[in-house]
Amino acid sequence: MTAPRQMNLVAFLQAQNCSNYPASWRHEGSMSDFLRPEYYQRIARVLEAGKFQMAFFDDRLAIPDIYGNDHASTVENGVRAVKMDLMPIVTAMGLATSRLGLGATYSTTYYEPFHVARLFATLDLMIGGRAAWNIVTSLNDSEAANFGRSEHLEHDARYDRADEFLEVVTGHWNSWDDDALILDKESGRFADAAKVRRLDYEGKYFRSRGPFPVPRSPQGQPVLIQAGQSGRGRAFASRWAEMIFAVFPNLAAGRKGYAEMKAALAAAGRDPASVSIAPAVYAIVGETQSMAEDKKAYIDGLAKPVDGLNLLCEVLNVDFSKKPMDEPFSDEELAGLSWHGFRDRVVSLSGKANPTVRDFVHFSGRGTIREFPCFVGTAKQVADGMEEWFGSACDGFVLAATHMPGSYEDFVRHVVPELQRRGLFQKEYQGATLRENLRLPMHPAGGLRRSAA
Amino acid sequence: MTAPRQMNLVAFLQAQNCSNYPASWRHEGSMSDFLRPEYYQRIARVLEAGKFQMAFFDDRLAIPDIYGNDHASTVENGVRAVKMDLMPIVTAMGLATSRLGLGATYSTTYYEPFHVARLFATLDLMIGGRAAWNIVTSLNDSEAANFGRSEHLEHDARYDRADEFLEVVTGHWNSWDDDALILDKESGRFADAAKVRRLDYEGKYFRSRGPFPVPRSPQGQPVLIQAGQSGRGRAFASRWAEMIFAVFPNLAAGRKGYAEMKAALAAAGRDPASVSIAPAVYAIVGETQSMAEDKKAYIDGLAKPVDGLNLLCEVLNVDFSKKPMDEPFSDEELAGLSWHGFRDRVVSLSGKANPTVRDFVHFSGRGTIREFPCFVGTAKQVADGMEEWFGSACDGFVLAATHMPGSYEDFVRHVVPELQRRGLFQKEYQGATLRENLRLPMHPAGGLRRSAA
Repeated sequence: MTAPRQMNLVAFLQAQNCSNYPASWRHEGSMSDFLRPEYYQRIARVLEAGKFQMAFFDDRLAIPDIYGNDHASTVENGVRAVKMDLMPIVTAMGLATSRLGLGATYSTTYYEPFHVARLFATLDLMIGGRAAWNIVTSLNDSEAANFGRSEHLEHDARYDRADEFLEVVTGHWNSWDDDALILDKESGRFADAAKVRRLDYEGKYFRSRGPFPVPRSPQGQPVLIQAGQSGRGRAFASRWAEMIFAVFPNLAAGRKGYAEMKAALAAAGRDPASVSIAPAVYAIVGETQSMAEDKKAYIDGLAKPVDGLNLLCEVLNVDFSKKPMDEPFSDEELAGLSWHGFRDRVVSLSGKANPTVRDFVHFSGRGTIREFPCFVGTAKQVADGMEEWFGSACDGFVLAATHMPGSYEDFVRHVVPELQRRGLFQKEYQGATLRENLRLPMHPAGGLRRSAA
Repeated sequence: MTAPRQMNLVAFLQAQNCSNYPASWRHEGSMSDFLRPEYYQRIARVLEAGKFQMAFFDDRLAIPDIYGNDHASTVENGVRAVKMDLMPIVTAMGLATSRLGLGATYSTTYYEPFHVARLFATLDLMIGGRAAWNIVTSLNDSEAANFGRSEHLEHDARYDRADEFLEVVTGHWNSWDDDALILDKESGRFADAAKVRRLDYEGKYFRSRGPFPVPRSPQGQPVLIQAGQSGRGRAFASRWAEMIFAVFPNLAAGRKGYAEMKAALAAAGRDPASVSIAPAVYAIVGETQSMAEDKKAYIDGLAKPVDGLNLLCEVLNVDFSKKPMDEPFSDEELAGLSWHGFRDRVVSLSGKANPTVRDFVHFSGRGTIREFPCFVGTAKQVADGMEEWFGSACDGFVLAATHMPGSYEDFVRHVVPELQRRGLFQKEYQGATLRENLRLPMHPAGGLRRSAA
């Protein structure tokens, strides 16, 4: 007997006083104590009460300052002007909860694989086997400048490097057997040396020897999240991801993208059913539809044009202030944009091979809540929308918040019980670790296992 | 009116189930749950009950495997065979306490300054202004091999690089004014852009641009700890350290070293009184002297020769298994040893310009509790010893533990009250932040301030 298929719910957070929606800090109900752990722990407790599988944090290694080559508008307007390191924050959230999975974004471009392997392995131990790593390759020249490089790596080379990075990280994670530790004070045997191996990795970009200094966690190793949707990025995700974070602008695009990704997983020799695909969405719920619509109008009104322009230039690594609003991007300019999946979405939605700045602003919805599909209405209406998507376009959702923590409080209080009533979402956690709660194996096979050879 | 001079007490920890004394895990009273946060939080609460200013963690980026070029004896015997990343651990301890300062070792050789600046700034916020960074330059080829370098950097070059590293880190920490944040939802002003600056650092080893994405913490910036005792290392410490971690093998050497370091601080333009010099010591306390001596004999008996050999080879970056026990090291070999301060101590204590392996084992005391001075006896006797040192050889102590957590429980229960009775140690914390409790300025001047220019 197979358990009925149920959705995974994941919260999408930023280490600052806004959600993915940059204007959210201007919401009257937004909490402002984001420089203290209580801010994040409060959100974690809400999500755990709602049986969310996981919360994960986005990250970039620079504040958005490519637009106009100046950080003033970002800082003045609070357009993600603060970005803290995620390790102390997810640790704090993990210690305030006992079941919620916690994911942090860390870059394969500016960090060392030995360091990342050790950080996440330690985190995973300290929060009892509930850690996940959202793998990104980093996007722009501002990040490069903070790390003393003159410019960021070209798209495909970033992913070649990332493949090796993952081979090192997962190789180290697999270098202690589950039962290596003995800890017998009488005999003085600490661990079985035959069960702890050097990795001796030698690649084109990375070398790392080992032995790794951190034993296995209760879930074996942290869960891998990835968002690659473009050609090379999709190949990377198909090889490594255990959960895929997607952006699908609408249901039709979602059905198409979902089918394509599942096919790519199969082509990569993975079991497509084992990898959860979760698109980013907003949900605005009210006691009545019109109350929800009013909420949405208030939230929409918080955005400023500068929000979107700053965030567009950040992810595309190009200064839009230098270009007239209605001049099309040339083929060469389009090829140079940093985030291919993002670019391709605008090309597709606009129906133009060479969109303009105005098209990018409009069709990406960057900096507004139009960036992701938004379910608006009563709990039943929101659940209807989610159920429809779940039927053919996803395995779960990455729920972005319109403001913090109210957006998740509303969702957990109103929508989660409705999803549970329909049997679409878990009423209780499956186990103590994130792998158990995502129904993932403790020792991943496929792309992960091969790499350890 | 000046407050009476009082000592600083700092605990010296490892992110594993042993103290600095590697055999400590074999102690019957050692706790074994070192892969869980409760282990570290328990220690933190004991130290805070004892009004310790700080706990800090040692670290190396590889397990000790240079001896015999093999990790088997390290793993089998548990000679610091586990080394977890410190960030999740100090975060967990900080969340279980409210006054104890928490320091983590991070390397200037294998990490990026932007990353380290951001990690520690975030940690400092999440634990309410109680973070410290113990700066090390890394020592050996095993660490290099984990990070894909063929060998570690030569001694003086490591410190040249570290100087630049600190200029970047402290420069970023100084790039947000205390009052930069506005957070006015009505006007939409997040922060004053005139109070957030790019660093635009260009050095020989590092470049980093900024602006830094993390605002000021309640203590301004994390406290800097350093241990450099050799020529170049001492110059580095004199420029940057706000607390100096020292190893003085005996009181006479302590008086000499203490005077020399204070002179070096003055020569570097710092106020010598503002920098606390704290040597590593053990304390074994019993209800009677003979009970304390019995404890010491039991503890001594836990050590194995392989402990010291593994740890010696680790810090000196040379394989002692290839050298006969009684063959003197040549001048060239001595020059190549990684930790100059450690080497110089053995030369001095042995009275030999060219010590042998046996001399290194014996005079360093590495892997035994002879490595640091050990106060043994009743609470009064231990306090007498500490008082004598405090009078002329130090400003406080880095207390290493013979086992965990019993060693600190004993000290806090028996010795701390005696030190407090004598007016030598604080009865209450001075404030909420580590800088307040170490009587350090929120905005360090001198070496730190200059670097931000």
